[in-house]
Amino acid sequence: MSGKEVATLYSYWRSSCSYRVRIALSLKGIPYEVKPVNIWKKDEHLTPEYRAINPMQQVPALRIDGRTLIDSISIMHYLEETRPEQPLLPSDPADRAKVREIVSVIASGIQPLQNVGILQLLPEEERVQWAQRVINKGFTALEKLLANSAGKYCFGDNISIADCCLIPQVYNARRFKVDVETYPAIARIDKDLLSHPAFKEAHPDNQPDAVKDAK
Amino acid sequence: MSGKEVATLYSYWRSSCSYRVRIALSLKGIPYEVKPVNIWKKDEHLTPEYRAINPMQQVPALRIDGRTLIDSISIMHYLEETRPEQPLLPSDPADRAKVREIVSVIASGIQPLQNVGILQLLPEEERVQWAQRVINKGFTALEKLLANSAGKYCFGDNISIADCCLIPQVYNARRFKVDVETYPAIARIDKDLLSHPAFKEAHPDNQPDAVKDAK
Repeated sequence: MSGKEVATLYSYWRSSCSYRVRIALSLKGIPYEVKPVNIWKKDEHLTPEYRAINPMQQVPALRIDGRTLIDSISIMHYLEETRPEQPLLPSDPADRAKVREIVSVIASGIQPLQNVGILQLLPEEERVQWAQRVINKGFTALEKLLANSAGKYCFGDNISIADCCLIPQVYNARRFKVDVETYPAIARIDKDLLSHPAFKEAHPDNQPDAVKDAK
Repeated sequence: MSGKEVATLYSYWRSSCSYRVRIALSLKGIPYEVKPVNIWKKDEHLTPEYRAINPMQQVPALRIDGRTLIDSISIMHYLEETRPEQPLLPSDPADRAKVREIVSVIASGIQPLQNVGILQLLPEEERVQWAQRVINKGFTALEKLLANSAGKYCFGDNISIADCCLIPQVYNARRFKVDVETYPAIARIDKDLLSHPAFKEAHPDNQPDAVKDAK
C-alpha cells in the first residue's frame, strides 16, 4: 500500500454509511482526512465535481491507495483485505458468516428502508412511523441473531464490521425516537462502544460538518 | 469439509435471494437438495419447524458442513471461502471491491425495496409502480458501474457473485414489467447467462416447487 498518501473520506456527518467507514478507519488506525459533502440542504452529492468522484452520487467515497472506492460494505472489506492488522472479521469461515449475517440484516434489511431517499417517497406525516416500523422489525430480528452470537460485542468479544454497522444504525434509531432500551443486547453493545475511542472519534457530533442542535 | 453430507437448501422458487444461492451452488458444483418453503400462499416460513431452522424466518437457509447458514450474501461468501475452486470473487482486493459494489447496489439498493414484505405495506394499486421506480433507479445506477467494470460479465470476463445477484434481480424486474432492454449492459449479461448451464439449473422455472402460469 502507498504509505505516503493520506486517505480522503467523502463523508456527511449524519450519514450512517459514512459513519460505518469512519469507525473502520479509526479502528484500523488508518489516517484520513474528511471532505464533507452536504447531501442534505445543499445537494453537494449531485454536483458534476462530486459525480466525477462517485458516479453513484452517494456518500461515502474513499480515496485510498491511489483509487476511489464507494459503498460502505465494500470499503470495509477492502480495508480488511489490505490491512489485516486489527482484524474486523474473525478468521474461521463459519464465524465470518455469522458476522456477515448481522451486517446484512442492517445493510440490506434496515438502513435502505429508512434512509432519506425512501422516506421522501412517503407523505411527510407518515415518515417517522415508517422508519420506526422498519427499525423495530429489524432490531427484533437482530436480537435473535445476537442471542446466539454476541459476547461483549456483536460476535464474541472482538469488534467486527457488524459493530461498525450496528452503532450507526442505533444512532439512526434514536433520531427516529425508537426505544432502543427494549432491545437488551443492542442497547448493551451500543452503550459499551459509544465510549470506545475509535467510535467516539467517528461519531457524527465529532465531525467537522456537524450541525449543533440539528433536528 | 464434510464430503458425506449432501447440502440442503431451504428455498422458494421465486425468491431472488434463494435464486442467488442456487446459482452459486451450481457454479461451484456443490451437490444439494432443495427443501421448498412456500413463503407465499402457505406462510411455511412462519411455522415453528422452520423457525427452528432459521430464526429469521426467511429463505434461503443452507444446511452444509454440519451447520445452518442464512442470508444469501453471507452464504455466498462462506461458499467462496470454504470452496475456492471455481472462484466467484477476483483475487485482487481492489477488484473484489468493484464486485462488492455491484452486489451492494442490488442487495441493499434494489431488492429490499421491492420485496414482498415492503410491497405489502403499500396500497395494492401502488405496488407495481413503486417496484418499477426502485428497480429503474437501481438499474440506472448499475449501468454506471458496469460501464467501468463489465467485460463479458459484471466484472471482466469471469462470473462473480455480482452475476449471481444480477440475474435474479433481472428476473424480478421482468415480473414487474420493467423494460430491461433499456439497460444495455444488464440486458446483454442477462441474455448471455440465462443460457449458462448453472444459471439454467438455478432458474425459478426449473425448481421442484415452481408453479406453472403463476401470476
